[in-house]
Amino acid sequence: MKKVLAINSGSSSFKYKLFSLPDEKVIAEGMADRVGLPDSTFDMKLADGKKYEEKENIPDQEAAVQKLLDWLQKYNVVTDLSEIAGVGHRIVAGGEYFKDSAIIDEDKLEKVFALKEYAPLHNPAEGEGIRAFMKLLPGVPEVGVFDTSFHETLDAVHYLYPIPYEYYEKYRARKYGAHGTSVRYVSAQAAEMMKKPLDELKLIVCHLGSGASITAVKDGKSYDTSMGFTPLAGIMMATRSGDVDPSLLQYVMKKENLSMDEMIEILNKKSGLLGVSGISPDMRDLKHNPDKRAQLAREMFINRIVRFIGAYTAEMGGVDGIVFTAGIGEHDKRVRKAVMRDLEFLGIDPDFDANETNGQKFITKPDSKIKVMIIPTDEELMIERDVVRLAHLD
Amino acid sequence: MKKVLAINSGSSSFKYKLFSLPDEKVIAEGMADRVGLPDSTFDMKLADGKKYEEKENIPDQEAAVQKLLDWLQKYNVVTDLSEIAGVGHRIVAGGEYFKDSAIIDEDKLEKVFALKEYAPLHNPAEGEGIRAFMKLLPGVPEVGVFDTSFHETLDAVHYLYPIPYEYYEKYRARKYGAHGTSVRYVSAQAAEMMKKPLDELKLIVCHLGSGASITAVKDGKSYDTSMGFTPLAGIMMATRSGDVDPSLLQYVMKKENLSMDEMIEILNKKSGLLGVSGISPDMRDLKHNPDKRAQLAREMFINRIVRFIGAYTAEMGGVDGIVFTAGIGEHDKRVRKAVMRDLEFLGIDPDFDANETNGQKFITKPDSKIKVMIIPTDEELMIERDVVRLAHLD
Repeated sequence: MKKVLAINSGSSSFKYKLFSLPDEKVIAEGMADRVGLPDSTFDMKLADGKKYEEKENIPDQEAAVQKLLDWLQKYNVVTDLSEIAGVGHRIVAGGEYFKDSAIIDEDKLEKVFALKEYAPLHNPAEGEGIRAFMKLLPGVPEVGVFDTSFHETLDAVHYLYPIPYEYYEKYRARKYGAHGTSVRYVSAQAAEMMKKPLDELKLIVCHLGSGASITAVKDGKSYDTSMGFTPLAGIMMATRSGDVDPSLLQYVMKKENLSMDEMIEILNKKSGLLGVSGISPDMRDLKHNPDKRAQLAREMFINRIVRFIGAYTAEMGGVDGIVFTAGIGEHDKRVRKAVMRDLEFLGIDPDFDANETNGQKFITKPDSKIKVMIIPTDEELMIERDVVRLAHLD
Repeated sequence: MKKVLAINSGSSSFKYKLFSLPDEKVIAEGMADRVGLPDSTFDMKLADGKKYEEKENIPDQEAAVQKLLDWLQKYNVVTDLSEIAGVGHRIVAGGEYFKDSAIIDEDKLEKVFALKEYAPLHNPAEGEGIRAFMKLLPGVPEVGVFDTSFHETLDAVHYLYPIPYEYYEKYRARKYGAHGTSVRYVSAQAAEMMKKPLDELKLIVCHLGSGASITAVKDGKSYDTSMGFTPLAGIMMATRSGDVDPSLLQYVMKKENLSMDEMIEILNKKSGLLGVSGISPDMRDLKHNPDKRAQLAREMFINRIVRFIGAYTAEMGGVDGIVFTAGIGEHDKRVRKAVMRDLEFLGIDPDFDANETNGQKFITKPDSKIKVMIIPTDEELMIERDVVRLAHLD
């Protein structure tokens, strides 16, 4: 039986899911954590619920991959490594080069590394992951699935910034977006739920995790998206600021004697929900906290979502469906409720009872002009499907 | 007969209008240009259409004021300077201190200078202008009319940035907005045209000049506005970028070896319509230019307007009236047409015939759910009225 691995390498972690074909069942999943750092760990959970964990020195991506392949055999998940028919890799930055997922050969791997300027922490680690698989599973197709590819359908009006055009010509300075794999998955799900062809729908996808973005999907294509050149832009997030007046940065940098790198680090790591609340980057921690700044942070988060939904509704000339997905989108009923309330004027008739619980469903009443849905995202499944599609495993 | 002067001092210019009371007629207007620079000029136009101009050395604001007072007497606009019952001054930055226009005494003048961090080029020049009038017209009330005051009704959800809260506590780092005097004027005009009380209306004001902003006015108060800590933020402008992913700046700064000050200078002076088109910062120059980038710049400008109108409609939970004002808003019918077309889904029924010509009027059909209006702005008239109100000249 053929199997496909979906890999998500972070700068010091490495998550995996092994799918069996053609039933797309997850038969093993887990992660290597703190790769290249002290106290690294490796774990694996099997389909029968058994879980294995080990503290062991994992110096690099190759050691993590070797460990994974050893354990898959040791715990009888595969009898022979040749059962692994393809490996898919989530890659953060595809630039303008990767307009779709792609089989990664040596040339394309060089491209992945070359795009590191757009994702300095991610692309090199992801490239190393691919290289390790190429070495340890020679002949098995490696597929790159890029967070940015889905947004390559944006037109110049939406992807260009109003800055000197030469920066685009010389450095490809433009909007790339992110979360494309997630948005692609839930858009297709939404069309199925709405029983309409995806290419006839105007959708807005609210991917609200610790990274958060809003994407307008028109006729099945990404039309505009809130993340920008990097995932720092757009709406407020757990620790990221989203959009900020550049002059304010200049002002704060002078006051605090910060370099631009330090300022950007603060905007990435110490801003957003954490920065405003001073308490936590996690919406769950803020939800029942009566602290004034905790509640303010939640309200600001909700406001920025509403703002972008309004903006993208206007850009598309209307909207048929709005999707909530990812951690907060799938689990924070209060956020969903507040957003729907603010948007009732557009033609949303919320089903607040349905909204009380989570899981894939409509949370508007049947006659609501605009449908609102909860759809749990599944990026790994999308990666598996791209491997099947590009490596012709079906 | 009492008269009131309205003054708008730039960093090296000085515009004035003299109003007669109570009829609010402009009886003299003009400007001192290149104050403190070589080849400075001074001009004056009278109500009868006569115009006078002179090249003369004007070393500072005081010399400009002295010249103005001399000419008002020389050309018999006033018989005696005591006829000038009050002077109003446009001031860019009022910070959190000036929540309304105010009579400026020595203490408040210090405040105007102290707020220079928020408007380094403007507040000092404006403060010098006030000081000159205090000296040359002793005892006459000076009134400061702040671009930011009208936006002091924003709540924290809208004025705070999702950055570490301490930057607000320590440095008042927040959104202040601009164009408040213009927005206040046209909002009141819009309510009159719509024959409804201003405090029952949801309006969106598109102030589209070389500086451009979108403001949501709810119940007569500024509810949210696109300019930020400074007038650099928000929509694309003639030479300003508006919102940009901060990480993109970091990237471009490294590529071009720029300091933050240099980068911000580029975002202020070489971006926007000029940056994208590479041709001109002026929409009139781009309008009939078939060049691809000229048209792209126009489309991006229109897109950013639509985006913010959508965002603010969502934030307010609907909109009753949309106003176009300032240079582009009052004179570029194509921009108005494109924006209305994109927003028809909201309930705008455009009157494209009415839109063909300029001047104060409705450009939607009588039954349009949302009214769209052209309203020529008049900041100087608003300044004159604030002087009358605060100095009790009525």
